[in-house]
Amino acid sequence: AQSSVTLFGIVDATIAHGRASGTGAANKTALANSGYNSSRIGFRGTEDLGGGMAASFWLEGSLGNDDGTAGQRIPVGNQNVLNGASPTNPNGVGDGAGLVFNRRSTVSLSGGWGEVRLGRDYTPSFWNLTVFDPFGTNGVGTTLTLVGPAGGLGTAGNAMAPVGTRGVIVRASNDIGYFLPANLGGFYGQFNYWLGENTFNGANSARDGTGWGGRLGYGAGPFNVAISYARTAYDATPVNPVQPITTTNTFTGAVAPTAAQIAAQRAGDFRTWNIGGQWDFGVAKVMGHYTREQRDSSAGNAGTGIPASGEIDGRGWLLGTLVPVGAGEIRASYSTYKIDAGAGADPRARQLALGYVHNLSKRTALYATAARVQNRNGAAVSLNGATLGTATSSTGYDLGIRHSF
Amino acid sequence: AQSSVTLFGIVDATIAHGRASGTGAANKTALANSGYNSSRIGFRGTEDLGGGMAASFWLEGSLGNDDGTAGQRIPVGNQNVLNGASPTNPNGVGDGAGLVFNRRSTVSLSGGWGEVRLGRDYTPSFWNLTVFDPFGTNGVGTTLTLVGPAGGLGTAGNAMAPVGTRGVIVRASNDIGYFLPANLGGFYGQFNYWLGENTFNGANSARDGTGWGGRLGYGAGPFNVAISYARTAYDATPVNPVQPITTTNTFTGAVAPTAAQIAAQRAGDFRTWNIGGQWDFGVAKVMGHYTREQRDSSAGNAGTGIPASGEIDGRGWLLGTLVPVGAGEIRASYSTYKIDAGAGADPRARQLALGYVHNLSKRTALYATAARVQNRNGAAVSLNGATLGTATSSTGYDLGIRHSF
Amino acid sequence: AQSSVTLFGIVDATIAHGRASGTGAANKTALANSGYNSSRIGFRGTEDLGGGMAASFWLEGSLGNDDGTAGQRIPVGNQNVLNGASPTNPNGVGDGAGLVFNRRSTVSLSGGWGEVRLGRDYTPSFWNLTVFDPFGTNGVGTTLTLVGPAGGLGTAGNAMAPVGTRGVIVRASNDIGYFLPANLGGFYGQFNYWLGENTFNGANSARDGTGWGGRLGYGAGPFNVAISYARTAYDATPVNPVQPITTTNTFTGAVAPTAAQIAAQRAGDFRTWNIGGQWDFGVAKVMGHYTREQRDSSAGNAGTGIPASGEIDGRGWLLGTLVPVGAGEIRASYSTYKIDAGAGADPRARQLALGYVHNLSKRTALYATAARVQNRNGAAVSLNGATLGTATSSTGYDLGIRHSF
Repeated sequence: AQSSVTLFGIVDATIAHGRASGTGAANKTALANSGYNSSRIGFRGTEDLGGGMAASFWLEGSLGNDDGTAGQRIPVGNQNVLNGASPTNPNGVGDGAGLVFNRRSTVSLSGGWGEVRLGRDYTPSFWNLTVFDPFGTNGVGTTLTLVGPAGGLGTAGNAMAPVGTRGVIVRASNDIGYFLPANLGGFYGQFNYWLGENTFNGANSARDGTGWGGRLGYGAGPFNVAISYARTAYDATPVNPVQPITTTNTFTGAVAPTAAQIAAQRAGDFRTWNIGGQWDFGVAKVMGHYTREQRDSSAGNAGTGIPASGEIDGRGWLLGTLVPVGAGEIRASYSTYKIDAGAGADPRARQLALGYVHNLSKRTALYATAARVQNRNGAAVSLNGATLGTATSSTGYDLGIRHSF
Repeated sequence: AQSSVTLFGIVDATIAHGRASGTGAANKTALANSGYNSSRIGFRGTEDLGGGMAASFWLEGSLGNDDGTAGQRIPVGNQNVLNGASPTNPNGVGDGAGLVFNRRSTVSLSGGWGEVRLGRDYTPSFWNLTVFDPFGTNGVGTTLTLVGPAGGLGTAGNAMAPVGTRGVIVRASNDIGYFLPANLGGFYGQFNYWLGENTFNGANSARDGTGWGGRLGYGAGPFNVAISYARTAYDATPVNPVQPITTTNTFTGAVAPTAAQIAAQRAGDFRTWNIGGQWDFGVAKVMGHYTREQRDSSAGNAGTGIPASGEIDGRGWLLGTLVPVGAGEIRASYSTYKIDAGAGADPRARQLALGYVHNLSKRTALYATAARVQNRNGAAVSLNGATLGTATSSTGYDLGIRHSF
Repeated sequence: AQSSVTLFGIVDATIAHGRASGTGAANKTALANSGYNSSRIGFRGTEDLGGGMAASFWLEGSLGNDDGTAGQRIPVGNQNVLNGASPTNPNGVGDGAGLVFNRRSTVSLSGGWGEVRLGRDYTPSFWNLTVFDPFGTNGVGTTLTLVGPAGGLGTAGNAMAPVGTRGVIVRASNDIGYFLPANLGGFYGQFNYWLGENTFNGANSARDGTGWGGRLGYGAGPFNVAISYARTAYDATPVNPVQPITTTNTFTGAVAPTAAQIAAQRAGDFRTWNIGGQWDFGVAKVMGHYTREQRDSSAGNAGTGIPASGEIDGRGWLLGTLVPVGAGEIRASYSTYKIDAGAGADPRARQLALGYVHNLSKRTALYATAARVQNRNGAAVSLNGATLGTATSSTGYDLGIRHSF
């Protein structure tokens, strides 16, 4: 077995400063990572099988190059359960615990008919948010249309995503994906199905954490547009809630979660659809996208601050531009997200971001970004680690270097 | 220091389905890994020192490519204590916490006299189980002669291995190994000694977790046969039980395990010997092995479900074949394991496995496997995550792709 | 982006034996790592940007090749808080949890004006201790001038370093470093500033965990000398003590540390300065260094065994030699460290170390080291894991192999 592996990665370091004002506000300065591109390290390769067929693999993990950490928590079953989680350690292990291939971990078989890809991969619905964001969903300028569904808009906004950020928003584990071939006259597309890996029988279902989605796009000349849809099932009363977070304690035997812990797991199905597009005018690329998320709710979620019944709706949009300037590029965007959480005030936030990237080479760039977010109705988005005060706005700055290999 | 490293690995993904029947049974479908070969990623290299001498290293870790996790819990001292374990976290860290070189981590010096190898490596007694298993101890067809000693035959079967699967069955840490040179007319062999790394003095011993073993074989033409033996000491009343699982808590000082935790650590010495062989008839390879395990028991183990006194015996055997078919290979095996746990019923299980591997290239293969296990006398082996019901059998299927690099 | 990565590392395995005598003493034998050089695995590369400019990266992590573990706890904010730490898991994750780049994780931009380096890196004050130690601060012969400040001299000595070994002694995270260019006629130097990454506002400060340091040296012909200084702020009453060790428990919400936990975090500022030098006589290199550490103390530290007020002083020195002998090298050193902890006895220790390294090639070496330490006034340094008895001395031996790639 001859070896043919490409070792690749990105080391992106940024001096990240966040500000807020009003009573209780606090600022923060950090040497952080991923201000322009996500820091990462990975291994990938392709084998030509002949007859137009190829086999390939891709293993890519997060990198915290500011402090040397690596890895990130992974919801291995796509449910609200993270790798290493147990009743006594519900947050699992990850963030800094060590290198895992949380960004992508796949094996593929491809040919003239397209590609079948197995493993952990991006959801089809994430692509429109990142491809059609001038800041590529990285750094202080990250579009609110990702911050909103994934991290919520603060306390009230947590109602949007299933139990914090554990829902299948950006990536899915145990994914079976099919990708259209490249030669379809500009059309591109993918379909994905991800497994929750529950036990099931006649009375039970296997749906908790299971989902599917697709994306279809068309790009030709200066024009590119795509739509996508994805949904993941989160049982309001999980069939197997105890199983994934029960841990076998060597000394005391199996530890079952408490009723409160089971209740906290309950979360309604999560659906998202979006559309994004871009036109390259030469002097500038103009891009935008619109996204809408829906989450079923139920009485079982009451303890988590989620309305007792009905549906939670979130929607947002972005308009942005990339303007080439010599060896560099100016980046600008306006993004907004709003959550309709039922009765009461609907939290919303809007953000303006402006930045410049100066390329020292294809691999190395210096960059500066500034962004300002304004919150309304209880939304609590803050930038670069600032603590919001009575004034509801926050300003953040990135000044960094991106080096890829 | 010129660099000469080979980066290698295997990415093996399988759609794994497990079934069971009867009251209480539950099925499961997962995108899993390692259905044909163990998924892994590693780094290795060899330096020619001249005069027939060479220095080499081998670092290889587990890979959960279905969800991007890496790493596995390691019993760093070969006792019943895992890396990162503490009284409040007795399961330690590992499984998915991040890349570790749990599969093999060695440095070697070799010459005409053989090889001295230091670090974490396979035990000599594991080789006969995996080399003479048509399924290579991977996937749904894994021989019961490994499942039995390592994971037990379910509840009653846990009596076989020292406290679950933590015993030195497949690998040992802190191992000092000697391997015979290759030019002995078909004879091959190895001797290993692994350290428990306990403190000791006149009154104490250093034996807990310490062990040794050896393997001797002969292969010529179509014929190959080998015998092996290994034993690891697990003190019935460990001399230093508190030390390895005491953790220093910054805020509260050292935390000592409870009496129950100490008791649960107690486990008798574990011994295994086996013999395996193979004959290549050309149209088919026929292989088989027989294995026997013995574990000392004591009253101190009563709380763990282990009989109050006496010895626990396990024994099993496998008969299997590999039949080349064009670019592929048919695999089949029958394996069985039985535990004599003293008074009462002796749990036993038997399994039939059948599979086909289709090689797309030397590096890439598609495969399908089916297996069915039947349990008797309280044995509770289930396949691919199924939950056994009142019927005591389970069926499992793998359908996957293996890509090596 | 063309890839150009060097994969490098060291696999160093040693049979490590430690002895002590007197009542309560215990010996230990282990297969350990890093007896000659620190075991490691890393990735690094440099890109020529033209005009004398270059961009580069360096990612290097610890390796426990005796048992396959990798990684180490990282104080990500340079405070007394480790990665993954929480009130219920104050020791965080690391040691064996998985590969992290705890040894070095940086991205650099360099030119004729020097180098700017961002990330996790060595402190400027560590270099004189390791460069001017014949044993390079590795193995049983490691100079007490590092053992003293970093690990203390046992119980009493823990007063020296901020809460155990978590202080910024060897490395700092979130570091911004500047290095002088190489062409200054023998002068070399660096200046570093590391961030604690606290939130702050008008009333608060961001100093907890923040520090700076510098090193200036001159090397020409056989002569080399350097001085360094470093200091890190540890607030006696941390402004944000709760924030870094509060964890968000999915099921129970945020968990705040107790008052005792907050108190235990309190630690005074830590300062160090040292000077080291070497003369190469040809037949032997003679080297030495002197170091002094100071730590502010306060009443808040009373619970941790630190004197209620005043300052703690530590100081030590080393004298050593390296004597080339054919393909090998004899190494010898005498080192001592003493802590003035206020009223009462001042713990002190002294050590004699002797070793031989035999190079099989540039990359591979065999080595043997013996060391003996003598403790006074409650100091409790033991070698290679021995447990001190009523006699206060300990002896340790390393016998190993170092292979680099």
